[in-house]
Amino acid sequence: MLVLSHQAFLHPPKPSSLPRIKPRASMSRSRSPSPLLDFPYLPPPHRELMLSLLSTVHSRLASHLLPSSVPSDVLSFHNDASTSFGALDIRSGAHDSPVDFILESWLHCKLPTGALNITTLFGFLNASTEAPHLLMEFIQGSPTSLVLFMDLLPRKDLVLHPEYLAEFYQDTQLEKLRQELNNLPYVQPYCSSSLYIRSVLSPTAVAVNINCGADGESSMEEVMGAQLSSVAKEVLQIWLDKCACSSHQMEESKRNVLIQRDNLIKTKTVEIDLSANLPRMFGPNVAEKIVGTIQKTFRI
Amino acid sequence: MLVLSHQAFLHPPKPSSLPRIKPRASMSRSRSPSPLLDFPYLPPPHRELMLSLLSTVHSRLASHLLPSSVPSDVLSFHNDASTSFGALDIRSGAHDSPVDFILESWLHCKLPTGALNITTLFGFLNASTEAPHLLMEFIQGSPTSLVLFMDLLPRKDLVLHPEYLAEFYQDTQLEKLRQELNNLPYVQPYCSSSLYIRSVLSPTAVAVNINCGADGESSMEEVMGAQLSSVAKEVLQIWLDKCACSSHQMEESKRNVLIQRDNLIKTKTVEIDLSANLPRMFGPNVAEKIVGTIQKTFRI
Repeated sequence: MLVLSHQAFLHPPKPSSLPRIKPRASMSRSRSPSPLLDFPYLPPPHRELMLSLLSTVHSRLASHLLPSSVPSDVLSFHNDASTSFGALDIRSGAHDSPVDFILESWLHCKLPTGALNITTLFGFLNASTEAPHLLMEFIQGSPTSLVLFMDLLPRKDLVLHPEYLAEFYQDTQLEKLRQELNNLPYVQPYCSSSLYIRSVLSPTAVAVNINCGADGESSMEEVMGAQLSSVAKEVLQIWLDKCACSSHQMEESKRNVLIQRDNLIKTKTVEIDLSANLPRMFGPNVAEKIVGTIQKTFRI
Repeated sequence: MLVLSHQAFLHPPKPSSLPRIKPRASMSRSRSPSPLLDFPYLPPPHRELMLSLLSTVHSRLASHLLPSSVPSDVLSFHNDASTSFGALDIRSGAHDSPVDFILESWLHCKLPTGALNITTLFGFLNASTEAPHLLMEFIQGSPTSLVLFMDLLPRKDLVLHPEYLAEFYQDTQLEKLRQELNNLPYVQPYCSSSLYIRSVLSPTAVAVNINCGADGESSMEEVMGAQLSSVAKEVLQIWLDKCACSSHQMEESKRNVLIQRDNLIKTKTVEIDLSANLPRMFGPNVAEKIVGTIQKTFRI
């Protein structure tokens, strides 16, 4: 949800004084399948890519993840005016897993200019490892335009730890993947408006704006279905292999700085991003529930 | 000299087996004025901008700087084939100054495709302060194209120290200056090929490629003389006011990490940039002298 800090995407909807939260029918019955797999608002290529990424995460990390304990009015929610819809699921890592939690969210917002769709996959590791976290975020402002953040978020100061930079960023060839996307037609570098978010990203972060122009719906479908999908899957694979499923252990004595740094990333992300923007999309009461659930998971 | 790591700028000149170093006439007589003020190879707008920046630094920091102790064959040098010329001056900070050193260099390289001109102004502070260093580098590959790096280099991990980010980057409005340049016509974001160099830069770093096209010599003169000059002067002013001349003191107990981080920046810069590229421009013997002088100043 990092990109919510980009004001360009958000026009405040009319405030709804008393947001009404109705669990969607499928959710009131059962927690399985997740409402994220049933979110009807996304353009098909965006939806297919996210489903594929989530499926890979779930099958590869099956033994790492505890069942979801997210309340049903957070698993699926909307604002009172039924112009904004969201689904959020969080799976905490099992006791002996390096996974702290996997956060998945889909947001849909009807705006005067069209529909805004934001999907997020956030893989946070715990202090048993120093390996990077995963961030994937796709912000589709129209059928022909998409802002995309994809990164392995460093957990150490890369200037002070060039060996960490070499291990997780140089040796993994992430730069090649970044360039592959950046060199495509329609693709421009994208800069977060938050200096803190920029600092959190790695030097191989994919941060781009894909704009296929007014008539480019089929071009967007092609880019998402081919190059974007392929790069996203490779980045995810690198994170799963080198980070989430690695046996790389962190020395107990060095965990304090790591935890302090991770906590700052969590706190600042919520502050810059969710606390500032969710109330505008869903009204204060719904937003408070969502942020509260995330803060509980973040333990901040 | 950070940008020397960008291979695109360098076509290795023919190796000269025995580089000949002849101090230029003006230098053999006297150290004043510096050969940097007399470097004849730069296109006029580039030269005027650098002279103006150096003049501001010298007059503002006059009482901070010791006389130059750079040997004359480093103050001014060229390769055996007289296709590459350089001038380097380094002024160390006085005992009670927060300035560690000011490094200024001008390089000129005749290439099959034209002339490459690189000017650098690097202001490094010592551990009495934690305020950022200054980097300014202009790499002009042709009269109509220029790559530009301008930054206040952070000396702390910005993720772990949001208060440092706020003090030196948010409150100083550096982002406004970055955007001012980035939004100009002919200007594109530029990405260093070195992941380490990218990590060293701040989130408000100006890193751009200005390309005015085949017929754009007058446009380049306009951009350099107006917006670029104005932004560069403002960035320099911020550094002089907030960093180099600030009374902000660093706690003695926290200096070790700062020194370790600064040393890594220096070591990696020399390794990635100078040691890798100067031999190709000036031959191994001249390059060794230049790198040796810089390493002595860097105390690495």
